[in-house]
Amino acid sequence: MKNIVLLGASGSIGTQTIDVVLHHSEKFRIIGLSVGHNIPKLKEILSQVNTVRYVSVADAQHLSELEELYPDITFYSGDEGLVKLAKLTDYDIFVDAVVGFRGLLPCLEAINNGKDIALANKESLVAGGPLVKEALKRNKVRLYPIDSEHSAILQCLQGNDKKEVDKLIVTASGGSFRDKSREELKDVTVEQALKHPNWSMGGRITIDSATMMNKGFEVIEAHYLFDLPYEQIDVILHRESVIHSMVQYQDHAIIAQLGSADMRLPIQYALSYPNRLVMHNDEPFGFTKYPALHFEKMDFERYPLLALAYEVGRKGGNLGAIMNAADEEAVSLFLNKKISFLSIETYIENAVRNLPFIQNPTLEEIIDSDKKARQFVIDQWKKGAVS
Amino acid sequence: MKNIVLLGASGSIGTQTIDVVLHHSEKFRIIGLSVGHNIPKLKEILSQVNTVRYVSVADAQHLSELEELYPDITFYSGDEGLVKLAKLTDYDIFVDAVVGFRGLLPCLEAINNGKDIALANKESLVAGGPLVKEALKRNKVRLYPIDSEHSAILQCLQGNDKKEVDKLIVTASGGSFRDKSREELKDVTVEQALKHPNWSMGGRITIDSATMMNKGFEVIEAHYLFDLPYEQIDVILHRESVIHSMVQYQDHAIIAQLGSADMRLPIQYALSYPNRLVMHNDEPFGFTKYPALHFEKMDFERYPLLALAYEVGRKGGNLGAIMNAADEEAVSLFLNKKISFLSIETYIENAVRNLPFIQNPTLEEIIDSDKKARQFVIDQWKKGAVS
Repeated sequence: MKNIVLLGASGSIGTQTIDVVLHHSEKFRIIGLSVGHNIPKLKEILSQVNTVRYVSVADAQHLSELEELYPDITFYSGDEGLVKLAKLTDYDIFVDAVVGFRGLLPCLEAINNGKDIALANKESLVAGGPLVKEALKRNKVRLYPIDSEHSAILQCLQGNDKKEVDKLIVTASGGSFRDKSREELKDVTVEQALKHPNWSMGGRITIDSATMMNKGFEVIEAHYLFDLPYEQIDVILHRESVIHSMVQYQDHAIIAQLGSADMRLPIQYALSYPNRLVMHNDEPFGFTKYPALHFEKMDFERYPLLALAYEVGRKGGNLGAIMNAADEEAVSLFLNKKISFLSIETYIENAVRNLPFIQNPTLEEIIDSDKKARQFVIDQWKKGAVS
Repeated sequence: MKNIVLLGASGSIGTQTIDVVLHHSEKFRIIGLSVGHNIPKLKEILSQVNTVRYVSVADAQHLSELEELYPDITFYSGDEGLVKLAKLTDYDIFVDAVVGFRGLLPCLEAINNGKDIALANKESLVAGGPLVKEALKRNKVRLYPIDSEHSAILQCLQGNDKKEVDKLIVTASGGSFRDKSREELKDVTVEQALKHPNWSMGGRITIDSATMMNKGFEVIEAHYLFDLPYEQIDVILHRESVIHSMVQYQDHAIIAQLGSADMRLPIQYALSYPNRLVMHNDEPFGFTKYPALHFEKMDFERYPLLALAYEVGRKGGNLGAIMNAADEEAVSLFLNKKISFLSIETYIENAVRNLPFIQNPTLEEIIDSDKKARQFVIDQWKKGAVS
């Protein structure tokens, strides 16, 4: 029996994690979880999951009502509530599925607490990569990725010696504008950008797919997850997103992981690793639905943010934090129709090129870089510095 | 250092095995080998490979010349020469790359001699499967497949628990007539049949690809190699033969092995398992050469010999030996323009349906079934029993 603490229980990854756990209640038990402001959703979760003993919510004003309703549960609130969950002793694996920069600190606390991590929070590695990697090594804990691409790579590495890896091949769908030239991108609208060809996802991630920023972040995450230099991480355009990623070995064998786009697979694999449990409520993948799979070389001039992510990754330090924060703010401006699609790239590049570089940042410096990058984007926008 | 005995050194797998060994002479050393009648080729091999101490040739009449030329090498001849090589003590792995039924007995002898097997000889499992499997278990030795599909499956099973396998998915190119209906097959010629769309191979294997008999044999081999029931072995049509085969797990993850069609990869993997060595003299696979990969459901009515192979495999006993022998004779009749392409199927089905079934055959009974099936096909042809 693995006891689980789950951050971000009301989000998409969180609810699917609960689904996996409830289907394998003989293996897994959620003893602590966090939600944001969605208290009705929390109540629904607590009516389904009767093993929860610790809960953190975003806003302290809900505490007294919740404590009265659930006298057997200990409640926390705010960002320090997430850290308190991370510091609990009576659990085995920490599922960090909170969205945004706030997922980093509890991730580090859970690692320092000696707990294995199942990580869906992108910022922990993109912004906090150097800190997380060092903490993992020092505490000898394992980190399992919860997303299709990195889970695929982990699966393709199984039973092989990492020293024999030639390269990782991360697949990219190309996003909503993959058939448009850069010239055609000048006038695209938010509504067009939000139509991902393969999935329905949140706003930021859909825009990050269209700019390929998301794939750039995944390259940086892959670097930290699998401890390989950027020269050994390739990206290939694969429209159908059926092959979730691949590993090429020095004997030229390529091992690929493929299947349907169900996120419960990487969630379940992160929890059951190295075993594979039965998948419930999901049809296995069928090739009849995908009679052809397509592959194209990645065009780095078409997707300059992907090229920039490689540069950011190679330089390291606080640049990941800057890039992530600048992207979040620029995408938010685009989604609010304040800036054009293509200028997202300019805002991010300006932030990366102009903010002070710190080679070995502390956590405080990473948090500070994040803040400064956000402010930089807002300032640039207010000044009208980007056309 | 692994010492190797190589049967069939002058054939295609044999010469590629020598190539692999010479590129990794710090790991592998060939100490014994066999060739057939090609004595010039043997001399060429011995000029390249200076570690050979035992050689078997098909015909005893060459012995005295060879013994004079190579006084440090011990020579054998005939089928008993192959068995003598198998019974040598000072080697680690037995590469059985001899073509045809004569590969079975030395394979069994090497297993009983406690040696690991790298198997390219199809008949050892198709005809001798029950005997080989029992001998492997009794002697606790491992058998590594040398062909693309089974090597791919072995690679896709690495690091996973076989109990968690849902099914094996063997890929099939479809052969030279994959775009023809059965109606259109009535008048096809030998010349047309020999044009495989993906590779240039020998006559029998090219015809066996077109009838899908070859894939049927591979299904039977997969059953014995991976100890899975036929219900868990699927075949899928994949024209490009880039994905060499796949394994689907109970969590619905599919792991695939893909790459170029270079047989040195499965050869090298069989020798270096579970490690992967650098591949020499070969460009890694590039997706730019294969912008699209196609998949189709297998049509068992279009390929009745594949359906029959499943039936033969399920019944077991001496039926694999009968099917293999009948196929070899029928294909030979077709290649000699004595019978039509479609009647290959009828000859094989008649042999399988009419010859006496033996559930638990001895080696002698398997050899006898092989002979009887060959004679049956010849007799049927002479009698004009198949239209």
